[in-house]
Amino acid sequence: MAKQKKAPRPKAQTPKGFRDYFGVEVSERAEMLRLITGVYHQYGFDALESSAVETVESLGKFLPDVDRPNEGVFAWQEFEEDGNGDWLALRYDLTAPLARVYAQHRNDLPTPYRRYTMGPVWRNEKPGPGRFRQFYQCDADTVGTASVAADAEICAMLSDTLEKVGIPRGDYIVRINNRKVLNGVLEAMGVTDEAQQANVLRTIDKFDKVGEAGVRELLGKGRLDASGAYIDGVGLTDEQSEPVVAFLTSKGASNDETLTNLRAAVGESTVGTEGIDELAEIANLLAAQSYGADRIVIDPSVVRGLGYYTGPVYEAELTFEILDEKGRKRQFGSVAGGGRYDDLVKRFTGQEVPATGVSIGVDRLLAALREKGRLSSEAQGPVVVTVMDKARMADYQTMVAELRQAGIRAEVYLGNPKNFGNQLKYADKRASPVAVIAGSDEFDKGLVQIKDLVLGAKIAENATLEEWKARPSQFEVPRSELVAKVKSILEEQD
Amino acid sequence: MAKQKKAPRPKAQTPKGFRDYFGVEVSERAEMLRLITGVYHQYGFDALESSAVETVESLGKFLPDVDRPNEGVFAWQEFEEDGNGDWLALRYDLTAPLARVYAQHRNDLPTPYRRYTMGPVWRNEKPGPGRFRQFYQCDADTVGTASVAADAEICAMLSDTLEKVGIPRGDYIVRINNRKVLNGVLEAMGVTDEAQQANVLRTIDKFDKVGEAGVRELLGKGRLDASGAYIDGVGLTDEQSEPVVAFLTSKGASNDETLTNLRAAVGESTVGTEGIDELAEIANLLAAQSYGADRIVIDPSVVRGLGYYTGPVYEAELTFEILDEKGRKRQFGSVAGGGRYDDLVKRFTGQEVPATGVSIGVDRLLAALREKGRLSSEAQGPVVVTVMDKARMADYQTMVAELRQAGIRAEVYLGNPKNFGNQLKYADKRASPVAVIAGSDEFDKGLVQIKDLVLGAKIAENATLEEWKARPSQFEVPRSELVAKVKSILEEQD
Repeated sequence: MAKQKKAPRPKAQTPKGFRDYFGVEVSERAEMLRLITGVYHQYGFDALESSAVETVESLGKFLPDVDRPNEGVFAWQEFEEDGNGDWLALRYDLTAPLARVYAQHRNDLPTPYRRYTMGPVWRNEKPGPGRFRQFYQCDADTVGTASVAADAEICAMLSDTLEKVGIPRGDYIVRINNRKVLNGVLEAMGVTDEAQQANVLRTIDKFDKVGEAGVRELLGKGRLDASGAYIDGVGLTDEQSEPVVAFLTSKGASNDETLTNLRAAVGESTVGTEGIDELAEIANLLAAQSYGADRIVIDPSVVRGLGYYTGPVYEAELTFEILDEKGRKRQFGSVAGGGRYDDLVKRFTGQEVPATGVSIGVDRLLAALREKGRLSSEAQGPVVVTVMDKARMADYQTMVAELRQAGIRAEVYLGNPKNFGNQLKYADKRASPVAVIAGSDEFDKGLVQIKDLVLGAKIAENATLEEWKARPSQFEVPRSELVAKVKSILEEQD
Repeated sequence: MAKQKKAPRPKAQTPKGFRDYFGVEVSERAEMLRLITGVYHQYGFDALESSAVETVESLGKFLPDVDRPNEGVFAWQEFEEDGNGDWLALRYDLTAPLARVYAQHRNDLPTPYRRYTMGPVWRNEKPGPGRFRQFYQCDADTVGTASVAADAEICAMLSDTLEKVGIPRGDYIVRINNRKVLNGVLEAMGVTDEAQQANVLRTIDKFDKVGEAGVRELLGKGRLDASGAYIDGVGLTDEQSEPVVAFLTSKGASNDETLTNLRAAVGESTVGTEGIDELAEIANLLAAQSYGADRIVIDPSVVRGLGYYTGPVYEAELTFEILDEKGRKRQFGSVAGGGRYDDLVKRFTGQEVPATGVSIGVDRLLAALREKGRLSSEAQGPVVVTVMDKARMADYQTMVAELRQAGIRAEVYLGNPKNFGNQLKYADKRASPVAVIAGSDEFDKGLVQIKDLVLGAKIAENATLEEWKARPSQFEVPRSELVAKVKSILEEQD
């Protein structure tokens, strides 16, 4: 007789590349999103929450990111008897759904349409350390206007938003560039071949890493990289390369100086001049609202997104230094980016609808705020009312009810109360600031014991015997003073 | 030569059964979830956000709902060269992920573990009118304690939550029942056959619809239903049916009276007595915290969930009347429900871990608040600063910046400004309360025109000529008084 196989137990495991978020990770993000959307709302942006699932057809299936054109989505086919069900997929960003929503509802939506949206997006990529297949985005876009006043507005809003969530002025900078200026530069260089234009784009994308000299080499004959490999160059003459280098290094001491440098870089190019005029208009609009160069600045060395966007591009960087994993100082870097794109809904309607928008990297921004200790930490656990006498559960519940009515986070220990040590271990795991203790003795005398767990831990660690005696961490008070005493202990802890 | 086919444009359409949410639909829900989680937090519950994607293996693939055992999930297979990739799926509720999370992280989590979670869930069901395949849930559960103090706590928290979001006392009731009491009733009836027990369960599930007499018929020989079809009965004798009917109708004028009635219904049954003792303890704990029968009450006619849960079950109903789609008055009904289940993680670990929890139907609760006009409506659009002179864009931007700094939602019109009528139509579509108008005339004189659009609309509808003259809806004020005047108009509109 064959042995009967027992069905194996399922593994309790998140799928590869996914993770769970606990406690303050969730509440801090929720609070940050609330602050961000508060600013967006005040700027006249309206909320949108599109469905997480889209048809593959309307999504376009692949990421628009030029570096990873083959990265995929999570997709499945709807069941239909004939096998011809629609293919559905989880959204991979919040821009593709905006395009679908705008095309679908355009007759009911105002024009221009300012909308913000936030939520998880999913990418079917190979997971890696710190690289997840589900993560948050928070976007704001203005659809249906070609006016660069919309770009300026989003940059101003981005600046306000960063300050609102706790990044002080001086610790961030919003930098603006324009794809049209780069197009002008290509025109000035006489680079008209599309493949060669793409090569130039790829090269300037490396400006951050290889610097001016490196870019010159890569535009010309090529370059030995750090690993010793030889990277072929684009094959331009030194003279041809000049406008690109001039473009990338044109940032002056003021916006005016930068714009003057750019005009020299693009020469006679019409599109280049148009791009510079747009930047000048943006600078002018921002100056009128007193956004100085300490907050928002024209900076042609911004290259991220130049390949994707069609007009102004902008990026918010945090400028304070942190230590990287190897203990070296480096700038925190980019937390938001965006720009203008003119073909948002063309796939659906055939019409060109100009749009501009920004995406905030929510998790990076949270990490930055944690790094700077700028999160109003809700990490504090609840006051724990311990259970000395199971029959007194109603009394313990009354205590927590009173504490909560006074605005204090509180709970009764609901595990097995037999081992009191376990109750204190529990309070420790919960990061409880205060434990309340009442047994039959206390009930008889109308008293409660209140233990300051934060002070208790400090004393246990550091204090001399004298200090220990002078600052008791446990107090016996009349039952009627429970709430007042807990409140005063919590206030002292802050 | 064959004609070349042009690729058709994708349809701009949400997938069947999915929808988008706009503006206040999103912000009102966010605000409600913030209030709910505020209460949960104060009760010592910690936030959890698990991944939206789970392995089908850990999810168990099918809904635990007895009525729809074959309803599915959205699932797909991970790509692996050998074709043996994991099957993944979108979560269909928030309890199955809790089971996986608790089993996976149990060594790091406190015991008991109180957690709340909220977010969308997905069901691969046939969509219908008002029936969507993605919707919100908001759950709170306590894992790892058998104490019914946990059940009482969740009922108290549910009551506090409903009042916090704007349902006044008297407009809702939390009702509690216990599966163990029903088990006692089955024991008292001598119904031990599992199939027959299931038949009895199915019958009492119809108590809401068919009433006491109907349940008697269905437990006995059967019943002609409204459509004329004959429904077979369970085949019990009248005497056997008595305890079920006694159970369902045992609600008395007070909890004490109800408990006395229940004791009669279960007779000598041990499990029944245990269930009644649990209800008595819950009633006692709640009374100690002054939750009277006007908020939380023992009610054995609660049958929803009795088939699924293993101990106390609870349900929150809104008791005010609304008009249904046919204009008939009916009670709004259930907005939350939950109960105790003892096998949460057994599938994963083999261990029984008791748990109890509640799920709030977020969308139904929002609908109820809308029905009662109790949402602090953010429906008001922004103040729109119109554009009379494109060259003055910086001035208009400065106006909205000033308005925002004063806490007023405001925006500049960014569409094509040529047709002023379109700007006012836009303001109308945005539900703008106020429009600001300034052309070269005004700039020359240092003035602005401010139009009260709410009053303007009212006057246009109702006013006599005298009223119209006496209450002008358009004001000319010095530029320096822009913010103050807009503020005073908005205050008058409230």
